[in-house]
Amino acid sequence: MNPDPDYSSAYLEVETDADDGIKGVGFVFTIGRGNDVVIKAIESLSERFIGMSIEPLLDDMKTAWDMLVHDSQLRWLGPEKGVEHMAIGAMLSALWDIKAKRAGVPLWQLLAEMEPEELVATLDFRYLTDVLTPEEAVEILRRGQEGKAERMQHLLDNGYPGYSTAAGWLGYSDEKMVSLAASESTEKGFDLIKLKVGQNLEDDLRRLRLAREAIGSNVRLAVDANQVWDVDVAIDWIQQFKDFELEWVEEPTSPDDVLGHARIAQAVHPIPIATGEQMQSRILYKQYLQANAFEVMQVDATRVAGPQELIIEYLLAHKFGKRVCPHAGGVGLCEAVQHFAMFDYIAISGRTEGRYIEYVDNQHEHFVTPVEIKNGNYMPPLAPGNSCEMTLETAEKYLYAP
Amino acid sequence: MNPDPDYSSAYLEVETDADDGIKGVGFVFTIGRGNDVVIKAIESLSERFIGMSIEPLLDDMKTAWDMLVHDSQLRWLGPEKGVEHMAIGAMLSALWDIKAKRAGVPLWQLLAEMEPEELVATLDFRYLTDVLTPEEAVEILRRGQEGKAERMQHLLDNGYPGYSTAAGWLGYSDEKMVSLAASESTEKGFDLIKLKVGQNLEDDLRRLRLAREAIGSNVRLAVDANQVWDVDVAIDWIQQFKDFELEWVEEPTSPDDVLGHARIAQAVHPIPIATGEQMQSRILYKQYLQANAFEVMQVDATRVAGPQELIIEYLLAHKFGKRVCPHAGGVGLCEAVQHFAMFDYIAISGRTEGRYIEYVDNQHEHFVTPVEIKNGNYMPPLAPGNSCEMTLETAEKYLYAP
Repeated sequence: MNPDPDYSSAYLEVETDADDGIKGVGFVFTIGRGNDVVIKAIESLSERFIGMSIEPLLDDMKTAWDMLVHDSQLRWLGPEKGVEHMAIGAMLSALWDIKAKRAGVPLWQLLAEMEPEELVATLDFRYLTDVLTPEEAVEILRRGQEGKAERMQHLLDNGYPGYSTAAGWLGYSDEKMVSLAASESTEKGFDLIKLKVGQNLEDDLRRLRLAREAIGSNVRLAVDANQVWDVDVAIDWIQQFKDFELEWVEEPTSPDDVLGHARIAQAVHPIPIATGEQMQSRILYKQYLQANAFEVMQVDATRVAGPQELIIEYLLAHKFGKRVCPHAGGVGLCEAVQHFAMFDYIAISGRTEGRYIEYVDNQHEHFVTPVEIKNGNYMPPLAPGNSCEMTLETAEKYLYAP
Repeated sequence: MNPDPDYSSAYLEVETDADDGIKGVGFVFTIGRGNDVVIKAIESLSERFIGMSIEPLLDDMKTAWDMLVHDSQLRWLGPEKGVEHMAIGAMLSALWDIKAKRAGVPLWQLLAEMEPEELVATLDFRYLTDVLTPEEAVEILRRGQEGKAERMQHLLDNGYPGYSTAAGWLGYSDEKMVSLAASESTEKGFDLIKLKVGQNLEDDLRRLRLAREAIGSNVRLAVDANQVWDVDVAIDWIQQFKDFELEWVEEPTSPDDVLGHARIAQAVHPIPIATGEQMQSRILYKQYLQANAFEVMQVDATRVAGPQELIIEYLLAHKFGKRVCPHAGGVGLCEAVQHFAMFDYIAISGRTEGRYIEYVDNQHEHFVTPVEIKNGNYMPPLAPGNSCEMTLETAEKYLYAP
């Protein structure tokens, strides 16, 4: 489905006239064409903030959310999806970045240390109250307080599990795939390896057998179809995978098809279904959970409206007892999304079993504080902010000047 | 939900070097902010067509669809929703406009006179085959051939039913609303009147009683909540309307909430639920139909990816036995959408009972061939093309030059 990606980023810096030198940073990852459209959307949003006082916004992030997500004219272009929603996410991320930098802590820590009531007051429950109310959210976060200090220490010592997609691309020869699968697991320490599937069933089955032989039975295996199937095709195809004890089958069909995923998930049970990297909003996540349409939820840091929407998605997953294994890769998605997985571990779910952040070992050199992986685990970033700041060198070298 | 619309249009003209002087026209209606973002999206799409030969595209509109909807880089920005999808719709509309103008017929007639196989070959069934296959689509259109000539004549003589939203705005006093409701029905001949609801239940009930008194029992009454409710609130509120014999309750909650609408529709049965003006794609429509989440489907001409997606939505509605009552108003939405309702009457559903095209009596002066309403009915446009061409005067007077 993504034959010719041209990794790009619509990158935003928010400056204030405070003398602290702090810049807030946000971005939208794209795969090429249309990046200029996202930039235009960010520019057009940004105009409204010029001249505003930032402290009231930082003190009440729900106001910033409402200004953007519930702008009645902008809503028409979604509502709450696609280019405009992603641009809104970049702006809200930049504001949260300033908030964390002013507090002198990484974003995951800022979120984990906010009082439950204070955090919930930043969230929007419109269209969600049939499954999650503010009171329930406070209750979840309140229960998450217990053991928080120990989990924070555990995270600092051990990190958060990652998984590797490095071996799995369809263009790789069997030899290259096998060799990468082996080195990613045994040398680099990843506990889970993911392969791409869906072009040809015989190829898929052969590659799965080879990969399983290469990694042994202790390393887990997941596959990703990148939306290539219609519903009935997905069911037939996935059932052929039943002997491989897959950790999940990812993106079997259109991310918009809740009922399609529900049918697939039921038909191929107990093979777990995963999706999320192209899921547009919390309203769609709500329905996937209501319909029991997946086991594994794969939030993406720059698809939705920033930290507040991501937090809601984690709360929803927790309420329905589903695992969140964030999508990452691209440019900066690993840096951005790790904060939410770590916040979840400390303050919501309290666990990492069966949970992983996706990892791809490239494009990290563009960031001032790139992710740090140790023995297959993401080590928590310690620098203040959201880790999204790009280096000056990258900004100059790769700036697209039309 | 739309307190301060600033009616706008991202307007596109496609020219060729043929000496026929034909321009293809498409547009996206917006309500203000973000219109520039849609223009940017259209500009960025347009570049890819410059220098292409148009005849192969017109002969095989599926190729044009694939170039845009399945562009792997652009898909990332949706997929198939929001700004990018709407921009794609404008481009595909402009191409169909050229096709109709070259054939010398209005778009509704072009579509109605295409052979079923020829029309179906332009359509994309990806993600739909679990409910509708190309073979079924051909079969539906083949059955639609019977009596086609008579229906075309009936349409030319009598037009297609419209309904009026003129009376219903929440800002109007009771007196103004009552007076408009009466004049729209008795003088202008509209058989159905729609009021806005959802701010205050007592106000709604009083206005509904007054409107019903004003229009009598022979004129139908519908209401529109513009997405203001959460699911449970919607159920309670709508149940209070049970004595008014409403034709439908429109947009009770988020258009993205299939399962929410399904719950509402079941709970308030037999009051019919309607939605669609902000529904993003055929994949969402498919699910509403599968879940029996509405009775009335309200397609919008510039929300989805142009004529081909609209035709699929009509085919889906027909397969599930639901009525389509298109959203219109704004700027040019009446002009644009009438073609699809008329095509449906002639070639798909063969009926107009319970079906209406929304009508608002303003902004038509901007168009070269504005809609013509007679006794509450839309008279079929006879000029070649899709009726979307704006006058030179409007283009000059209202051009937004930043």
